[in-house]
Amino acid sequence: MTTQEELHQWYELAQQLRVDSIRATTIAGSGHPTSSMSAADVMAVLLTKYFHYDFEHPKNPNNDRLIFSKGHAAPLLYSMYKAAGVINDEELRSLRKLGSRLEGHPTPILPWVDVATGSLGQGLPIAVGLALAGKYLDQLPYHVWVLLGDSETAEGSVWEAFDHAAHYTLDNLIAIIDVNRLGQRGQTELGWNTQAYSHRAKAFGWQAIEIDGHDFTQIDHAMNAAIAVNDRPTVIIARTKKGQGVATLEDLGGWHGKALKPEQEEQAIAELGGERQIIIQVHQPDTQEPVPTGKPQPLQLPSYEKDTKVATRRAYGDALKALGNSQPDVVALDAEVSNSTYVEDFAEAFPERYFEMYIAEQQMIAAAVGLQVRKYKPFASTFAAFLTRAYDFIRMAAVSRANIKLMGSHAGVSIGQDGASQMGLEDLAAFRAVWSSTVLYPSDANQTAKLVAQMSDRQGIVYLRTTREATPVIYDADAEFPIGGSKVIRSSDQDQATIIGAGITLHEALKAYEQLKNAGITVRTIDAYSVKPIDVSTLHQAAQDTEGNLVVVEDHWLEGGLGAAVLDAFAGVGEMPTYEGPQLQLIKLAVSEMPTSGTPEELLHAAKIDADAIIAAVRSLVKHPLSTKC
Amino acid sequence: MTTQEELHQWYELAQQLRVDSIRATTIAGSGHPTSSMSAADVMAVLLTKYFHYDFEHPKNPNNDRLIFSKGHAAPLLYSMYKAAGVINDEELRSLRKLGSRLEGHPTPILPWVDVATGSLGQGLPIAVGLALAGKYLDQLPYHVWVLLGDSETAEGSVWEAFDHAAHYTLDNLIAIIDVNRLGQRGQTELGWNTQAYSHRAKAFGWQAIEIDGHDFTQIDHAMNAAIAVNDRPTVIIARTKKGQGVATLEDLGGWHGKALKPEQEEQAIAELGGERQIIIQVHQPDTQEPVPTGKPQPLQLPSYEKDTKVATRRAYGDALKALGNSQPDVVALDAEVSNSTYVEDFAEAFPERYFEMYIAEQQMIAAAVGLQVRKYKPFASTFAAFLTRAYDFIRMAAVSRANIKLMGSHAGVSIGQDGASQMGLEDLAAFRAVWSSTVLYPSDANQTAKLVAQMSDRQGIVYLRTTREATPVIYDADAEFPIGGSKVIRSSDQDQATIIGAGITLHEALKAYEQLKNAGITVRTIDAYSVKPIDVSTLHQAAQDTEGNLVVVEDHWLEGGLGAAVLDAFAGVGEMPTYEGPQLQLIKLAVSEMPTSGTPEELLHAAKIDADAIIAAVRSLVKHPLSTKC
Repeated sequence: MTTQEELHQWYELAQQLRVDSIRATTIAGSGHPTSSMSAADVMAVLLTKYFHYDFEHPKNPNNDRLIFSKGHAAPLLYSMYKAAGVINDEELRSLRKLGSRLEGHPTPILPWVDVATGSLGQGLPIAVGLALAGKYLDQLPYHVWVLLGDSETAEGSVWEAFDHAAHYTLDNLIAIIDVNRLGQRGQTELGWNTQAYSHRAKAFGWQAIEIDGHDFTQIDHAMNAAIAVNDRPTVIIARTKKGQGVATLEDLGGWHGKALKPEQEEQAIAELGGERQIIIQVHQPDTQEPVPTGKPQPLQLPSYEKDTKVATRRAYGDALKALGNSQPDVVALDAEVSNSTYVEDFAEAFPERYFEMYIAEQQMIAAAVGLQVRKYKPFASTFAAFLTRAYDFIRMAAVSRANIKLMGSHAGVSIGQDGASQMGLEDLAAFRAVWSSTVLYPSDANQTAKLVAQMSDRQGIVYLRTTREATPVIYDADAEFPIGGSKVIRSSDQDQATIIGAGITLHEALKAYEQLKNAGITVRTIDAYSVKPIDVSTLHQAAQDTEGNLVVVEDHWLEGGLGAAVLDAFAGVGEMPTYEGPQLQLIKLAVSEMPTSGTPEELLHAAKIDADAIIAAVRSLVKHPLSTKC
Repeated sequence: MTTQEELHQWYELAQQLRVDSIRATTIAGSGHPTSSMSAADVMAVLLTKYFHYDFEHPKNPNNDRLIFSKGHAAPLLYSMYKAAGVINDEELRSLRKLGSRLEGHPTPILPWVDVATGSLGQGLPIAVGLALAGKYLDQLPYHVWVLLGDSETAEGSVWEAFDHAAHYTLDNLIAIIDVNRLGQRGQTELGWNTQAYSHRAKAFGWQAIEIDGHDFTQIDHAMNAAIAVNDRPTVIIARTKKGQGVATLEDLGGWHGKALKPEQEEQAIAELGGERQIIIQVHQPDTQEPVPTGKPQPLQLPSYEKDTKVATRRAYGDALKALGNSQPDVVALDAEVSNSTYVEDFAEAFPERYFEMYIAEQQMIAAAVGLQVRKYKPFASTFAAFLTRAYDFIRMAAVSRANIKLMGSHAGVSIGQDGASQMGLEDLAAFRAVWSSTVLYPSDANQTAKLVAQMSDRQGIVYLRTTREATPVIYDADAEFPIGGSKVIRSSDQDQATIIGAGITLHEALKAYEQLKNAGITVRTIDAYSVKPIDVSTLHQAAQDTEGNLVVVEDHWLEGGLGAAVLDAFAGVGEMPTYEGPQLQLIKLAVSEMPTSGTPEELLHAAKIDADAIIAAVRSLVKHPLSTKC
């Protein structure tokens, strides 16, 4: 039962949240007061009655989680932090200023913000990851609360989340849709048709509760019902008014993302009953320990016999399973291709740490982001081509300062018959252009295993690209491959050019090396398995030693991949050492025409990235074969 | 009423489609026979009774459209083409071979394939674009048929399509979900729970019909009901068996994407009643003319006074409206930010050619791909950051050889206070690495208008990046800016270095120029508005003239953007002329730390891409200022 005292407290707190949202945005001169005001009542009830959170220990595993999927309502979130007593009024007034923790959209610079939001439709799928952690790994009774805007339900990723949350019976997940009817540029698609939202949510297997989002009693009852249910997630569909509480703003167009002018501010605050300084004692969370997911064991990586043929995707699967055995915090996700990525072996060995994400790459990446909030180490895998589906989520994961590990298999034209739709040809470019990223591209099974082991503790977005085809094992099982390094696998003091390859093209480079050697041309051959960071000093040395003659060959589009990484190594980027050797004569061999179906060999040849093309490129640089020169 | 004759014909045809799917994949040694067999009955009824198509004139505007969203069922599609008499058995047996039109997944190399599929969950959203064209632009009675797999309904993009199709009452759109229960690695999430699919579809506003997908009478009735409805789209949810018709394949795991061995093939074909050579006379389509969307008018581009301040996104909106007035085939789409992209002006002027896509970027790009199938010229716009959401759709649009025009606004840190989530910082890298792409980045309003005009007829994926902030108009309204060109805006015969910028950084370059000039250093200043293709010869000339001293400055991550494009111009990529000038000393100035909120000026400074940073970079290259040198 809702008490009169509660009703009074909530009203006062909600008005304070509105006033503070207005004050912060007016002084900032920009921001979203009206989108904050619509959800103030709901958040007032949540903060005082249902939310359990130890603000002094944001990493307390028992804490409830709160994600503002509608990140533009950041002023409301920050006003809640003020009401919780963890930021002061001065900091609130620093909103959107350089150096402030209170950015225009929430980021984990604030210790109570787990993930960045602001690209709509991402908060709920990330919450699915957190709720998976809570229910299946931690096995703790915390709840994951998500505030969504109504407009963002147009994003398909929201429905991936609805789907997966129900599939995994995430009764610890509670979504609140703030149906304020008005999007950025007018009425939303569904307006105030809360029944439409409800039908959709129920059809996806959720408990759906429609309420007046400004009626505290209804809010209270809905949250109570959400907590009570134990076989499905709940969505509270709150009909609200944008700008609620101020007549000149309420439910009016033209006020999205607009701060009030000082005179408007004054009037609005007066109408809301003036400033308040309420501090809420937020409920402390439970004090249980998370259930351990296993005991650490010594790492026993797989090893492979030299000169056998093993696909690097196969080695990835083997190594991931070994890592899972060694590190109980390693978890794996896959988008219904685990028999192609070989993540199925991990899934079989550690079913409780494997999450099938079906064909929903956005949800897969979002779940990984959610899982790493609770310090798990998620490895998410699918075809390299299909990771492009989640590029916005990967971009935002970087803003979240997330630590996630991604594997893209079936890279390049060398997949063969399936054709262009299945070929990852832009992944190196896309991942290199992600902040905090590491990009790895092994050429051999033993190398793959060593890199997978290093991925585990690597910070940021770590991407491993693998090959469909079985390729020769060229390294000993005890060789080391540090991230940021490279392997000079053929070298002499008479090298006239350098071939730089990685993955499938390294094997073409080795074939080219042999043929060139027979023709009297020796070339240095470098395995650039670490595409980002790239091994600048080895590349500089090679250019120095081989008259600046470089051939870079990659199974990727011409732009942004390994060739670009090599070029960057010779440009004055950041703190890189300066190159002062002979002038570069660099030839990039990469895919430039749209590939078709064919055998891997045919397609490597057609794309001019095979041994023949490498030999031709080297010959075009090396005018005088060694035999004539000496 | 279904007749006995029909039942017999359908049975025979369906068996033929199965046999041919098996034959083609067995000879190829790979492919998806069982995923083809499950849908053979449904497709047999469609092809003989409901599909209206002029195979001799695939571009006939009255043709029905058929999209295999489950692109891996390509053998079935090709078997249908054989049954329609447009490919022969010899060609069918070329499946997946180099040089064959019959690729592993359908592509528009075949004249009857409008768009490439193979990345799941894309066919239905593309069909929404085609159905929009049919209902609102062409105003022709053709139907758009889409065959989906059950697994792909896990993709959020499918629900974006369900949502938009109902919103636009696309009663000309008929989706068929082939619920064969088995995904690539086991049971799908929903298995044979056709009711769950039905509930979801109905909740999204569709007519949903559950049938036994191997019962011809039920198929017939469902298609009839789909054609009859006139206020909503229809989905036929067909419960089927993967591998239907062959006991050793039917509804069994382990048969996804697997060809039969010759001995298995022989037995299967026998069980299916042997080979058949049925040719179907497919119904001819209607003969109406599409409704014209307007009359061409002379193009009157907007023009802007020099030294006023205008945001390039504002100029884009103005130019798009002008283009819309001139070219009746120009259509516009936006993802609920049309008041930020200024597409609202087009929407107001030409409401019948504007499609609000709400916050569903994947659906927006897919609809653009669908619209261009019917030769409309779609311009799709949103924040640059949010186009990353649709990267897989853009990648696949290239495989579709689609001609679409995209605009990304709010690029870079210069957007200011909203923070990193809203900043497009990887868009140049991402778009450069798309096949067939053009990447434009204007610095001024007049230039923007000229580039928008050129986008209209440009083939492939054309991307225009714009800036949030108002920037000075620096060019005359009559200046020309050909794609592939650049503007040398400051030049002398004593230039000691070259600054290359574009967009917002060009204005910083101009400030740097003035300050350097005052300090006795003259620098060439180049506006590289065409990032791809880049103006190689002007860059070579500048390097030649300025001792190889280049500073490239961009509001983008360090990787893959303008700096990479400039480096590529000096590497031996494709047919590029070779650079033979002084050794390059190239400094890339770009964003390397995660930005926060702040004013545009503060953030440009913090990112070290403002005039101060440019001056420092030039000074580090130019050891001897001109004054001392002379």
